[in-house]
Amino acid sequence: MQPEKALPNKENNFSEWYSEILERAELTDIRYNVKGFIVYRPNLMRLINLIKDELERRLVEKGHRQVLFPVVIPKSYLEKEQQHITGFEAQVFELSVEEGEERLALRPTSETAFYPMYSLWIHSYKDLPLKLFQTVTVYRKETKATRPLIRGREFFWIEAHDAFENLDLALGQVFEDVEITKGALRKFGLAFIVVQREEWDKFPGAEKTFAFDSLMPDGRVLQIATTHYLGTKFSKPFEIIYLNKMGTREYVHQTSFGPGISRMAAAIISVHGDEFGLVLPFEVASIQVVIVPIPKGNNEKEVLEKTSEIGMKLNKINIRFQIDLSEDRPGSKFYKWELAGVPVRIEIGEKEIVEKTLTLFRRDTRKRWKIMEADLEKELSSLRELILDNLLRKATERLNNSIVKVNNKEELLNKSKQNKILVMNFCGRLECAQQLKDETRGYEIRGRRIDIEEETWGSCALCGEKSEKVVVVARAF
Amino acid sequence: MQPEKALPNKENNFSEWYSEILERAELTDIRYNVKGFIVYRPNLMRLINLIKDELERRLVEKGHRQVLFPVVIPKSYLEKEQQHITGFEAQVFELSVEEGEERLALRPTSETAFYPMYSLWIHSYKDLPLKLFQTVTVYRKETKATRPLIRGREFFWIEAHDAFENLDLALGQVFEDVEITKGALRKFGLAFIVVQREEWDKFPGAEKTFAFDSLMPDGRVLQIATTHYLGTKFSKPFEIIYLNKMGTREYVHQTSFGPGISRMAAAIISVHGDEFGLVLPFEVASIQVVIVPIPKGNNEKEVLEKTSEIGMKLNKINIRFQIDLSEDRPGSKFYKWELAGVPVRIEIGEKEIVEKTLTLFRRDTRKRWKIMEADLEKELSSLRELILDNLLRKATERLNNSIVKVNNKEELLNKSKQNKILVMNFCGRLECAQQLKDETRGYEIRGRRIDIEEETWGSCALCGEKSEKVVVVARAF
Repeated sequence: MQPEKALPNKENNFSEWYSEILERAELTDIRYNVKGFIVYRPNLMRLINLIKDELERRLVEKGHRQVLFPVVIPKSYLEKEQQHITGFEAQVFELSVEEGEERLALRPTSETAFYPMYSLWIHSYKDLPLKLFQTVTVYRKETKATRPLIRGREFFWIEAHDAFENLDLALGQVFEDVEITKGALRKFGLAFIVVQREEWDKFPGAEKTFAFDSLMPDGRVLQIATTHYLGTKFSKPFEIIYLNKMGTREYVHQTSFGPGISRMAAAIISVHGDEFGLVLPFEVASIQVVIVPIPKGNNEKEVLEKTSEIGMKLNKINIRFQIDLSEDRPGSKFYKWELAGVPVRIEIGEKEIVEKTLTLFRRDTRKRWKIMEADLEKELSSLRELILDNLLRKATERLNNSIVKVNNKEELLNKSKQNKILVMNFCGRLECAQQLKDETRGYEIRGRRIDIEEETWGSCALCGEKSEKVVVVARAF
Repeated sequence: MQPEKALPNKENNFSEWYSEILERAELTDIRYNVKGFIVYRPNLMRLINLIKDELERRLVEKGHRQVLFPVVIPKSYLEKEQQHITGFEAQVFELSVEEGEERLALRPTSETAFYPMYSLWIHSYKDLPLKLFQTVTVYRKETKATRPLIRGREFFWIEAHDAFENLDLALGQVFEDVEITKGALRKFGLAFIVVQREEWDKFPGAEKTFAFDSLMPDGRVLQIATTHYLGTKFSKPFEIIYLNKMGTREYVHQTSFGPGISRMAAAIISVHGDEFGLVLPFEVASIQVVIVPIPKGNNEKEVLEKTSEIGMKLNKINIRFQIDLSEDRPGSKFYKWELAGVPVRIEIGEKEIVEKTLTLFRRDTRKRWKIMEADLEKELSSLRELILDNLLRKATERLNNSIVKVNNKEELLNKSKQNKILVMNFCGRLECAQQLKDETRGYEIRGRRIDIEEETWGSCALCGEKSEKVVVVARAF
């Protein structure tokens, strides 16, 4: 592999940067020739698996158990909850069936696959809470332009479907889902805002929808997880009824939670990456350390010996590492592993042998320095934290610096031209939201933040009427 | 949970036993109401994940990398290899598309999804071997009666697709696939025969097909893995061409390998299970040890203390364990964990406290005995091996005892009534295979064994003509 020119600048030209990094780092291949369907290549699958493992581990810790439901959902199930089918109808892929046969859809989400079984499995309060999840691909006939991992007709997610005795317990679950997501996103070095979506923007069939938005390099936000309080809106049509402790029949209260694995991968790639390629924290790096031996003539043997010694040491302290023994020049190797986002590179050459040192390179800061060989373990364990802290700090600063308060339409239009995330007072009316979208080329009300408290300080920035709440406004993918 | 009556006898009434164990051990739910599609419940998913991990680990060790290809395959791709589409056409689910739009199938297997990309990814001998796999569900419109995990319209498998410079390297891969499968099946305690399938029984589009058959309790065999030498039969229509070291354009030689995760689960459940439920070796038991404290009045505190002490000890030696603190009676707990197939139970009661002992129960032999508390670690490490050895020995003995040689049609008909696996001389003609099937209510030529050498010792057991080879004959699922 030959060093190539740097990637485009991701802030100024995100689209081009994103397409190029996906291709150069061999993450996706978009040449499959079916609209909205892409190939996940090995470098991406390793990232996907680490994201998945982190989320699944947290779900299991909180008492969820894994299941697998069929990919096909009878249309008659999908149609049981009116808002749900209205929301998904146009997006549903259907199988071709014979005249008179039951119509079958590919799951766009699996509420209506799970809940007929819930009505068979749940009888009494002793069967509650029921907390199940599956890790699957889902299918939506997107009509907007698709973009790998961000908007596709097939994407990878986890969906958790939980049932409880009452509203309080169900709302408690929604906040547990928020904490699970926060915990995972911090491990990925991602900053986020958590909002409650507006009425017209809820998940079809939900009473309340909460969402995580991540800030992408071009100033747009990307929804990477949602969790919904469904109330009894599904338990009524699906007759999911339990006998409470008093012997009375009650409908369960439900929640569903959808952390988006493909989209989290997109956010990790986009938020941390730079013009040299991917930048990964240890937590989601399938190779955490690469060792590049630089043997020269008379010290080849010592360099290779030291390389395998260091390898054995890394193995003992459970570092996922690789030794690059290929015949490429060192420069090509550096280029390749930087592109792949490997957090730390260790170089071992003539000088390092003589001095009993190692040369370290940190991918996130691109700093190169020497350490004493004996300090390696201590150094890596501190780098693990420093790198994640640095990525998280940068992402958080960028998010915070991007958020500005606007007081009226003039300020709003002004700041929207700078691609900022806006915070404003809002009357709560759909008409104002529509007007906002039209006049700003696409800004949307994302909802009221639930991760920080913000009191109304003025009147609706759009119509000047009485403000109902403070909302976040942004362009979104 | 109340102790229920034992399960039916699995040898005499396999169908009923199998349905009951799937239901009682909460492995599957067949009430989803779409033919051939079932729900995988948490107890099954844990087994499935352990099988998957074992197979994936072995594939990665041998240089395979994981990918994910779209679930939809354009019909035009599926149709590129004539035998392939002929073999799968009737089984393919299609999406409903608009007049004039490209027809899309749900993958029945993914050769024709992978290989268009292989022609884009492979240019020179330096790109070879290419060894990729995916772990996915696949879709086949089975018309025969379906049975959970054994024959369904949606099942879970791994498919590896490898490309090589020449025939020798590709055949080498086929034998590596065989070794991967053998290694994994031994960890599952399963016995098997490995055969080369007859011409008419090959994978559609393959040059050679090799298959693993496991013996089920009713005397039928179940194919649990196949690996195929595809030659250049796909690389020609898909134009997967590389420049060899001499600079000449050559077609790659390909293999595909499909270990069936759902079917391996079915075999583990069926081969090891008994009238008390599942029997699992440590290797595929998500709970390897259950601790049942039996506190009584004045020693409740000591019993619970010792229970958590033992728990901490198990944690330290990486045993997956659970402590049953539910309010059920000990008998109900024993019943429940035996049904779940937990390999070892530890009981802690009054006597155990006084004597500094532990009462152990082994699920596979159903033996109960006492050990000194201090010997626990040593005992468990030996039990891990003893249990797997015992299950593997029993499965192997049953398989070997079931295989009988037959010399002529009379012996053949006779032994087929005893549901034996038959070994016979065979002329190699399809007519004889067809006659065999008709006259024995379903016996099939499974192929020539490749795991042991067998020389022709007589003439074709069916027609008396010259024998071409020795074949295994059995009823199959």
